[in-house]
Amino acid sequence: MDQNEQAPKKKKRLEVDDYVDGVLNNNRAILAQTITLVESNAEKHFELAQEVITKLLPHTGKSIRIGITGVPGAGKSTLIETFGTYLCNLGHKVAVLAVDPSSQISKGSILGDKTRMEQLGRNKSAFVRPTPAGGTLGGVARKSRETMLICEAAGYDIIIVETVGVGQSETTVRSMVDLFLVLMITGAGDELQGMKKGVLELADAILINKADGDNRVKALAAREEYNQILHYLPQVTKGWETKAYTCSALTGEGIEELWSLVGNYMAHTKRNNLHFQRRKEQLSLWLHETLQMQLLQRFYEHATVKEQLPKLKTEVEDGQITVTIAAQRLLQQYDLEKEDSFFQK
Amino acid sequence: MDQNEQAPKKKKRLEVDDYVDGVLNNNRAILAQTITLVESNAEKHFELAQEVITKLLPHTGKSIRIGITGVPGAGKSTLIETFGTYLCNLGHKVAVLAVDPSSQISKGSILGDKTRMEQLGRNKSAFVRPTPAGGTLGGVARKSRETMLICEAAGYDIIIVETVGVGQSETTVRSMVDLFLVLMITGAGDELQGMKKGVLELADAILINKADGDNRVKALAAREEYNQILHYLPQVTKGWETKAYTCSALTGEGIEELWSLVGNYMAHTKRNNLHFQRRKEQLSLWLHETLQMQLLQRFYEHATVKEQLPKLKTEVEDGQITVTIAAQRLLQQYDLEKEDSFFQK
Repeated sequence: MDQNEQAPKKKKRLEVDDYVDGVLNNNRAILAQTITLVESNAEKHFELAQEVITKLLPHTGKSIRIGITGVPGAGKSTLIETFGTYLCNLGHKVAVLAVDPSSQISKGSILGDKTRMEQLGRNKSAFVRPTPAGGTLGGVARKSRETMLICEAAGYDIIIVETVGVGQSETTVRSMVDLFLVLMITGAGDELQGMKKGVLELADAILINKADGDNRVKALAAREEYNQILHYLPQVTKGWETKAYTCSALTGEGIEELWSLVGNYMAHTKRNNLHFQRRKEQLSLWLHETLQMQLLQRFYEHATVKEQLPKLKTEVEDGQITVTIAAQRLLQQYDLEKEDSFFQK
Repeated sequence: MDQNEQAPKKKKRLEVDDYVDGVLNNNRAILAQTITLVESNAEKHFELAQEVITKLLPHTGKSIRIGITGVPGAGKSTLIETFGTYLCNLGHKVAVLAVDPSSQISKGSILGDKTRMEQLGRNKSAFVRPTPAGGTLGGVARKSRETMLICEAAGYDIIIVETVGVGQSETTVRSMVDLFLVLMITGAGDELQGMKKGVLELADAILINKADGDNRVKALAAREEYNQILHYLPQVTKGWETKAYTCSALTGEGIEELWSLVGNYMAHTKRNNLHFQRRKEQLSLWLHETLQMQLLQRFYEHATVKEQLPKLKTEVEDGQITVTIAAQRLLQQYDLEKEDSFFQK
């Protein structure tokens, strides 16, 4: 035996079509690898990932996209597990994603613990993807949106995107799903849990979870309170009245009703041409957000800006120059430097 | 008499120092002209205005800056008139400005009617400036901020900035004042008038106006309700508990208390070094907002972008290319075009 024979077989590098075929055949290993590719921050993966997604695009868009938010302790994971298992039993294929920009701060994710949704994760009809690691909300949002497209191409017909209410993450998730659910529990100051972030204004339905045992009566009372508040808020989805419902991820009560709620909602939005209109608007918004994020990022990461901005900021704070002049000066420098670097190429 | 003698005397064009001296001497005609100069969208006025403001900068910053918002009908104008007159009688000099981006839409301003605050407008110690005409919120905000500086240089020691709650205008005004008041009235769905826009989270005090006659008892009840809600909200200003108060612009009840509230607030923020820290942060934020606004404006108004963006948007909406690729392509084109135009100079 010579050395060559002993060398371990090199893992074959996947090409664009390997990824595409793997996803379309719902090969779970390749599906996971494709998502990892999309989530990669390495430049060499970027173009490959975009080529793969472009080829998958014709196979996307056919799922029901559901967003779920709720304060920690509201029981999001348990509800998704119960609801997801119920849907799988009905013959659906369910993918669960997360948008959790907090993971960049704590370097560990609130949502992404390995043990979450164990039961659903073992289900052959379900695919539970942990939240992508790190990055800005904009970056995390792109990855989640593209992961959603990949899951759709793999045949998942229900995508659940969950988020904890960190910063703007709820607005971001609302802008990538068809229907947005807000999970609540009863208790002191409840109304404000949600009101605070204006999250009720994003909701197509409020679910009051843990409506079981001793808590059931309180949950029913909370439902009435929410319905009163919701009465004053503008409609999120034209012609659709956002209402509060009770459910229990523990006993399964209200889960069937939740699914029929989703059905009614989708029928309403498709009948009134709201569904495709919203999807179009979401794409347009995503495009604008991407452009703006990139423009600002390029500016703030430019060497001249990094060097000059702190100085100008100090001058402004000390009352030496006006804000308007400081901004004008920095933008002129930025333009000049960009032109210089072109000559040096 | 020859023709030359008959020609009307040309109005002398003011130079930088004419404006500066006029403002510093609180010459009301020149003060008004200086603000008009700042509000002008003509390029030739821009540099002149900035030169004037730069020279005035050392004389700015010494006023108490108060922001006021409230739903239409809450009685903002009447309250400002009553409060402003009270302050003038105490020997203060009061300037009243407005941030009202809605005027761009209606081509007429909600706030800027000529007859508003007639009494205060006639007071020699007061200066009531109608809202600047037209423009984006960003543009209106710049003009109001610079007008505030000019009024300070003219010796006004209390500046009141009012706004109707259109879009982000409340957040904008919050970011240019020391203290932010939210005016409310009693009535159905009241709480939500404010809650809706998260405006309670910006307030340093809630004033329930029209607490007079038959309405007094209701106003007192509303005050208790607000105090309960406020209990759950985070502090806007460190160490300062936002509370609800009643007042009546009609009877003058609560106006003296409002002034002592302002005094307590200013003492608190100055004692704890919050005052100058916030002013610094506001300047920094204003600088960043200006930079970002300009970057985006230049991009969206660029000929290539105007031409290519609608096409790319359609391709994205039709599922032909990914959002990420569309954004990348447009940014590359934008960069190329900018370099080309440099060669053509």
